[in-house]
Amino acid sequence: MTDLTPEQTAALNERHRVRMERKKAIIDAKIAAADKKIGIIIVNTGNGKGKSSSAFGMVGRALGHGMKVGVVQFIKGAMSTGDEMFLRRFPDDVSFHAMGEGYTWETQNRERDIVKAEQAWEQARRFLSDPAYGLVVLDELNIALKYHYLDVHTVIADLLDRPEMQHVVVTGRGAPPELIAVADTVSEMTDVKHAFRAGIAAQAGTEW
Amino acid sequence: MTDLTPEQTAALNERHRVRMERKKAIIDAKIAAADKKIGIIIVNTGNGKGKSSSAFGMVGRALGHGMKVGVVQFIKGAMSTGDEMFLRRFPDDVSFHAMGEGYTWETQNRERDIVKAEQAWEQARRFLSDPAYGLVVLDELNIALKYHYLDVHTVIADLLDRPEMQHVVVTGRGAPPELIAVADTVSEMTDVKHAFRAGIAAQAGTEW
Repeated sequence: MTDLTPEQTAALNERHRVRMERKKAIIDAKIAAADKKIGIIIVNTGNGKGKSSSAFGMVGRALGHGMKVGVVQFIKGAMSTGDEMFLRRFPDDVSFHAMGEGYTWETQNRERDIVKAEQAWEQARRFLSDPAYGLVVLDELNIALKYHYLDVHTVIADLLDRPEMQHVVVTGRGAPPELIAVADTVSEMTDVKHAFRAGIAAQAGTEW
Repeated sequence: MTDLTPEQTAALNERHRVRMERKKAIIDAKIAAADKKIGIIIVNTGNGKGKSSSAFGMVGRALGHGMKVGVVQFIKGAMSTGDEMFLRRFPDDVSFHAMGEGYTWETQNRERDIVKAEQAWEQARRFLSDPAYGLVVLDELNIALKYHYLDVHTVIADLLDRPEMQHVVVTGRGAPPELIAVADTVSEMTDVKHAFRAGIAAQAGTEW
């Protein structure tokens, strides 16, 4: 920017101001139009990094607002993660249930995976029927749905039957279209680049 | 699954086991090949939800592993968020600096935005030169780069010059290609669906 004259810089600054003033009017109108307050279903899917970490970021965000949070981890549970170690520090505010036994290629036992998924769903239903929980995280639920360990219609019926102001975040690759259809916000985390493919290990603090 | 005979179910379970056994061999080989341990640069970009929340999820994850974390928020800072309220509870482990004054269409002042971005970068450099910080979050830095409030080459030089084991997460829409080129892991959060467009307000706990 140092190659502009003071006059050019002043003109640039003024153009920026006018453009932003216009943008603010548009954005303010959209904000005014979006005035409903209601519990939403958020789905984080895709092959990229950020699905579970975003859900756990929302847990911190909710705790910052004094909300009570329920977490059920499907699939995960064989190994203690930084997420779990951290969130277990707040037993009054976060009810944390890691109810899986590992990825499907680790367990290699479809029948047992189904039993674990059903038990995890029972815990999820307890949260989904308790208005005290402002946020419910169902981590890796999409995987359990993808493998048909749980019936997607039962899951959706329970989700839609939850308390009106309760938010739910569902994570995992391959979210089924039926779930996407009933969700309010869906993000697909696309894997543009991953350190793992460059020979870098999954490390504490970033990956688990 | 109830319409299968016991024999069919047993066959299905066995096919699953064999497939997963094979998958495990492939994945284990990949894990064995990815053995480097080194600080990485993670970029969360795209128009979808989950960029900042994923970064803050990694903060919790890092805290779970006993790491010390530095956070600099570019652009954001005019309003207190759940993220900030929560992370300020850990002053010994998280150094939190919200150094913006709002989105560009709120401030409408290019010169002042540049001064704030430069001050925020000074704070970022303090973290990037201190190996005590295992994770540094540079929230919305991409916005400051997109508007050329900061020089991308200076930013990249400082990032590459950081302590070897330090991880950095950069968030914000429109990550510049120069930053993507030097990053180790890049996720694009794609907006498949957003509650806001269905008339639902940005709410505490999910959006801020």
